[in-house]
Amino acid sequence: MNLIQYPLRAEWAGLQQRAAQQQGADVAQRVQQIFEDVRQRGDAALLDYAQQFDGADLPAAGGLRVSAQELAAAEAQVPAALQAAIRQAHANILRFHEAQVPAEERVETMPGVLCWRRAVPVQRVGLYIPGGTAPLFSTLLMLGVPAKLAGCPNIVLCTPPQKDGAVNPVILFTAQLLGIDTIVKAGGAQAVAALSGGTESVPAVDKIFGPGNRYVTAAKQLSTRYGVAIDMPAGPSEVLVMADASANPAFVAADLLSQAEHGPDSQVILLSDSLYILEQTKAEVERQLRELPRAEVAAQALTESRAILLRDAQEMLDFSNEYAPEHLILAVENPEPLAAGVTNAGSVFLGHLTPEAVGDYASGTNHTLPTNGYARNYSGVSLDSFFKKITFQRLTPEGLRNVGPVVETMAEAEGLRAHARAVTLRLEALAGGEQE
Amino acid sequence: MNLIQYPLRAEWAGLQQRAAQQQGADVAQRVQQIFEDVRQRGDAALLDYAQQFDGADLPAAGGLRVSAQELAAAEAQVPAALQAAIRQAHANILRFHEAQVPAEERVETMPGVLCWRRAVPVQRVGLYIPGGTAPLFSTLLMLGVPAKLAGCPNIVLCTPPQKDGAVNPVILFTAQLLGIDTIVKAGGAQAVAALSGGTESVPAVDKIFGPGNRYVTAAKQLSTRYGVAIDMPAGPSEVLVMADASANPAFVAADLLSQAEHGPDSQVILLSDSLYILEQTKAEVERQLRELPRAEVAAQALTESRAILLRDAQEMLDFSNEYAPEHLILAVENPEPLAAGVTNAGSVFLGHLTPEAVGDYASGTNHTLPTNGYARNYSGVSLDSFFKKITFQRLTPEGLRNVGPVVETMAEAEGLRAHARAVTLRLEALAGGEQE
Repeated sequence: MNLIQYPLRAEWAGLQQRAAQQQGADVAQRVQQIFEDVRQRGDAALLDYAQQFDGADLPAAGGLRVSAQELAAAEAQVPAALQAAIRQAHANILRFHEAQVPAEERVETMPGVLCWRRAVPVQRVGLYIPGGTAPLFSTLLMLGVPAKLAGCPNIVLCTPPQKDGAVNPVILFTAQLLGIDTIVKAGGAQAVAALSGGTESVPAVDKIFGPGNRYVTAAKQLSTRYGVAIDMPAGPSEVLVMADASANPAFVAADLLSQAEHGPDSQVILLSDSLYILEQTKAEVERQLRELPRAEVAAQALTESRAILLRDAQEMLDFSNEYAPEHLILAVENPEPLAAGVTNAGSVFLGHLTPEAVGDYASGTNHTLPTNGYARNYSGVSLDSFFKKITFQRLTPEGLRNVGPVVETMAEAEGLRAHARAVTLRLEALAGGEQE
Repeated sequence: MNLIQYPLRAEWAGLQQRAAQQQGADVAQRVQQIFEDVRQRGDAALLDYAQQFDGADLPAAGGLRVSAQELAAAEAQVPAALQAAIRQAHANILRFHEAQVPAEERVETMPGVLCWRRAVPVQRVGLYIPGGTAPLFSTLLMLGVPAKLAGCPNIVLCTPPQKDGAVNPVILFTAQLLGIDTIVKAGGAQAVAALSGGTESVPAVDKIFGPGNRYVTAAKQLSTRYGVAIDMPAGPSEVLVMADASANPAFVAADLLSQAEHGPDSQVILLSDSLYILEQTKAEVERQLRELPRAEVAAQALTESRAILLRDAQEMLDFSNEYAPEHLILAVENPEPLAAGVTNAGSVFLGHLTPEAVGDYASGTNHTLPTNGYARNYSGVSLDSFFKKITFQRLTPEGLRNVGPVVETMAEAEGLRAHARAVTLRLEALAGGEQE
């Protein structure tokens, strides 16, 4: 970790800089090719890519879709303790997201002018879950719980097959728990391409959710050109910890490391008004690092990390709000007043006993959060992400008489005569006794 | 209008096709140049463009920012009837959007695991309002009311100057009514460029809202590459009307024309299960068209419009949901059951006395709505658009004991040892009597 003491305000912007994300023209070009191939050849292209990228012979393994038999067989392959943990996490995530169910708002803005707004689920959603060594069943919970709760009638899960052509059983167990049974063995940019346009085996969707490598990220960006929406722009995961003199350096170090182990491009920032805490935490990080299986990854992320000494809590808060971290840990004695001052962050963890890991898995909050400074202008995934809000209005004769003249005056002033006429004709008909 | 009778389902997709939006490589290139120029030269570039595109000598007119004097002088230039209409529209829009104020949700997902979500206003928003012959003060109401209601602390309004270097007084009156006083005399792509990066006179913002021509649209798209969010993808305005035998052809024709007068690329679709209504409406459209000042624009839009005869209400609803119209008018005897079946639409107008024009101006609903089929996956602008939702969590010792083992099990199964350690260390400390 790089220790910086009392930087000038003018130096903050430099310290808040994320490592530049170069997508690479080669990635964009390759993804474009894959897109065109999948849109032209459909399933045949997906089968080829499964062979090429995943080493899986899908025709021999029953094709692109997970069968009912495969789904039913998954549970027996998942240890009971892990099943119980996933069930508990599911219950907590469900409970938190249930509080987000919107009520229909009905307002009579003037007598006879009734307006309301209804949340309608996005009709077709695609969930992308990466495979590889660590199957992210936790992300499937984070996307699947709100998708089901919103009532999205069509949910398609794409995840890459293992070499044997099967999907990781923990992913399948979690899908079954969620009630998701349209599961496609496809990964990478080809999965996103399939979701964005549909193939023989993959239904096209309206919105695509989920994390992935830079090919998946580039493919999600590209899908927006075909009228598909995506959850949010993606970037490497990040944490900012504010620690005061009451903080436990071992805890803080563990939190920084749990961010750093995500990947070599993870962003880690520690702020404190205590040099002692900064130095102790730095030492703890080095000590705990040695015990980690992913030490190499974490060590690489830490070369870019910063431990910054600031004057007081207000400076820490100002710095954090400018940086807009995905995860913000308030490792301070009295976190509530600081939490009240947070304007830009994805998710906030209060006090010494609330590690980021609890939000990653099971506290109930969603772990799909804005990175790369997008906490300034985006929310994390929530139940809202799976709804559109449609507005409705209905006027009675009285309502039209009340609001009609307002509309006529404004439309004429904007030079839109036909808008005014649409009201005038109806008011004349009312005056003539029609339609009452 | 083109009349199509009982098309086969296989033909629907063709009838739902929007006119292709070609942005043109020349537009993209020009906008890119303007962006780079504004980001390099700042105010100086904006002054040059005001001269070049708006014919306005801004240095002679007091510079780029609207002065307090200009703002105060606007009211006297706006007719009293228009002032009253704008005030009434403001009150109705405010009333409808007030119902959208979110409550903070606090949930104890397990004993001692407290999670909550707070809506925090986007800190810096930019509102773009086009100028030209018809200053869209109604759009300023639609963006300004929720921006102020959400409590966005920094609101910047950009709108092009008139030739005399002034801003249209109705725009200024509306801004004053809203309490918006940071007003910049800049239009087009250069205004969006200024908002996305800031200049000496224009504060940079986090999110940009508002309509515009294809240069503005391209500039908003480009601004997203600089970390700025935008309200939604833009396209030409559109209406779909469902009319049954009870419909009044004169009313329906007026509604179609009020859409068509927006621009030559406006999309107009009429569905009915009554050939008589289709034919009568077609005749009415031709009759009313002659009386319009913008007849030429409307006539051009109508060359691409479609009047489609379908079998029944269910077919009309299916067609509309596939098309996903920005505006949907239910000109039927009994609109409520149809409204309940709407899955994809921006805003819906029920019955014979609810023309789209009331929603455009004053019923209270927002008129900034998804076009081009984006009603499948986007909502219109609402109070939500000016908030981010930040999640928070805090665990007591009991909470950590309850949820900790779940997190440890899941983190180990995902191969993330440091995540598990962040919990284990704390549980061990609790067992040892620390931190209780």
